[in-house]
Amino acid sequence: MSHFKSLTLEWSEDRLKMIDQRKLPTAEEYVECRNHEEVYVAIREMIVRGAPAIGATAAFGYLLGAKEVLDASDEVLLDHMTTVKKRLSESRPTAVNLFWALDRMENALNSNWGLERKKLIESLERAALSIAKEDIEINKSLGRNGATVVRDGDGILTHCNAGALATVDYGTALGVMRAAVEQGKRIKIFADETRPYLQGARLTAWELIKSGIDVTLICDNMAGWVMKKGFIDLVLVGADRIAANGDAANKIGTYSVAILAQRHGIPFYIAAPLSTVDLTTASGEEIPIEERSHREITHIGNQQIAPEGVRCLNPAFDVTPSSLITGIITEKGIARPPYDVSLRGMFE
Amino acid sequence: MSHFKSLTLEWSEDRLKMIDQRKLPTAEEYVECRNHEEVYVAIREMIVRGAPAIGATAAFGYLLGAKEVLDASDEVLLDHMTTVKKRLSESRPTAVNLFWALDRMENALNSNWGLERKKLIESLERAALSIAKEDIEINKSLGRNGATVVRDGDGILTHCNAGALATVDYGTALGVMRAAVEQGKRIKIFADETRPYLQGARLTAWELIKSGIDVTLICDNMAGWVMKKGFIDLVLVGADRIAANGDAANKIGTYSVAILAQRHGIPFYIAAPLSTVDLTTASGEEIPIEERSHREITHIGNQQIAPEGVRCLNPAFDVTPSSLITGIITEKGIARPPYDVSLRGMFE
Repeated sequence: MSHFKSLTLEWSEDRLKMIDQRKLPTAEEYVECRNHEEVYVAIREMIVRGAPAIGATAAFGYLLGAKEVLDASDEVLLDHMTTVKKRLSESRPTAVNLFWALDRMENALNSNWGLERKKLIESLERAALSIAKEDIEINKSLGRNGATVVRDGDGILTHCNAGALATVDYGTALGVMRAAVEQGKRIKIFADETRPYLQGARLTAWELIKSGIDVTLICDNMAGWVMKKGFIDLVLVGADRIAANGDAANKIGTYSVAILAQRHGIPFYIAAPLSTVDLTTASGEEIPIEERSHREITHIGNQQIAPEGVRCLNPAFDVTPSSLITGIITEKGIARPPYDVSLRGMFE
Repeated sequence: MSHFKSLTLEWSEDRLKMIDQRKLPTAEEYVECRNHEEVYVAIREMIVRGAPAIGATAAFGYLLGAKEVLDASDEVLLDHMTTVKKRLSESRPTAVNLFWALDRMENALNSNWGLERKKLIESLERAALSIAKEDIEINKSLGRNGATVVRDGDGILTHCNAGALATVDYGTALGVMRAAVEQGKRIKIFADETRPYLQGARLTAWELIKSGIDVTLICDNMAGWVMKKGFIDLVLVGADRIAANGDAANKIGTYSVAILAQRHGIPFYIAAPLSTVDLTTASGEEIPIEERSHREITHIGNQQIAPEGVRCLNPAFDVTPSSLITGIITEKGIARPPYDVSLRGMFE
């Protein structure tokens, strides 16, 4: 059996181990999932998050699901895998990589159907491992492509965490920064803390410090002011789903950052693998936006920061219209407007 | 001796009592100041905050300073009052009401100089009480003037706390909302939580709920998205200093909100008493911006939310250029562009 290990995920035989992203940066703890339900919970509870990381995690969840009924009849196995796929796909609604990875696993099941059971499971394991390993290679290509828009000395603003922790490893927006640094460019990163879940403060700052990349943490509402002060030359963020017309769903607050960037004449780039592009979604209007628990706003950990019972809104994502996006950096190159043409072209 | 009590401040004879705004909304605790140094600390540590509240608090601090040397020689008293004024003026750098109130107290000292000591102190007490009482009357006038731009059914976004807690009572931006509600208008308030100090979550939400005004709490980075969704018809915020040309310093993040409002065609109003207008400051460029402790960003209470030793920026305020401001609501009416003419006219 194969073994695989990255910053975000570790697969060994019968379990998927992952760094508990809820506990960072004050503790490095790990969670082990031994069945698909534990994987469902890990995605739902954001032990693992980030669109590409969710995709790879779900692939291993599907594999664990198959292992749960190793000796069952064909009919029971097929029925079970339908249940597993449905359950995992309900863990988070916005990231399209989740559905993409599950479809790819289902295809592996279908195309290897007829093999003896042990071989069938091995083929599913190969499929999940491919998704994980490809993700790293894709991020490295994407990083190289994106680094062409980074100049020596640039100040770069990012929002949320589109880093190694949001992917299997290396990262998308942070992968572009890594590639630029590998090319010897000196850059200064400004990380939005990204309320309510604080992925910027907890994950991006942690990851960049760990990699020796210069980072300054700011509150989300300081983004406009640091642009006004001339600290920012470029905005680089990830995406959770990109529609055929280039509209991009990403962490709540990205839309505001894009408007602020345009106002200050700063290029705004999305960095995401093509698995994040969903050509079946025509525009951003069609992307479902997850509404998360209001406790994420009223409490930080167990500390209450708002009055008892106050009404809240907590959309986890927003949609940035393609008109605000300078380019979409992918493993195949940088898509430029008009995106309905350039994105479709990358799938050919 | 006089007694005075409002939501924010209570004066009785030899002490200034104030609600501890650091502890809200989970606890209603009070702090008593018996000398000018305790008042300095209360302003510095943000036990009390908000430009008009700081002004009134400093006035009572000046009065307490005078009481510290009740039996001293004239020379010692004058020398002490110079020290007291200097100390109190160093508590926070941005709010001009602080300097305005201290100048007014010094004028009261000078114009009553020669009176027997007890009468002199009484005249200082009358001056401090006037500042406090006038603030409430000014806010009510300002509220009535501002309510003319609020329509029945409006969704109103506000940032930070420009409420009763930021003033002696009633509030500036929240005073406008109170006046609109008193006129029978149904309004829905959206309150930015306002990182890092969370004045929106802790104070504005608390104050509006207490007053029975409809409020929904959002994270700062959601402001653009709720505008896009059509929830916001009007933005109302306070100010800490307004320059002669109409540029307005207010809580960090206000600048971003103003850009987002303009982008969505939403009117953006500042509500502030004329004591916040500083005609000696020509433009926003000249307004000093306080940089506060990075611990406000890396910790919430005692909870660490960012990696050890991460670099941060923490400007407490930003400056919104007058070109983004639809109107400045004051107790004398609503100033409109060009502000260099309209603001100056209000002082004539």
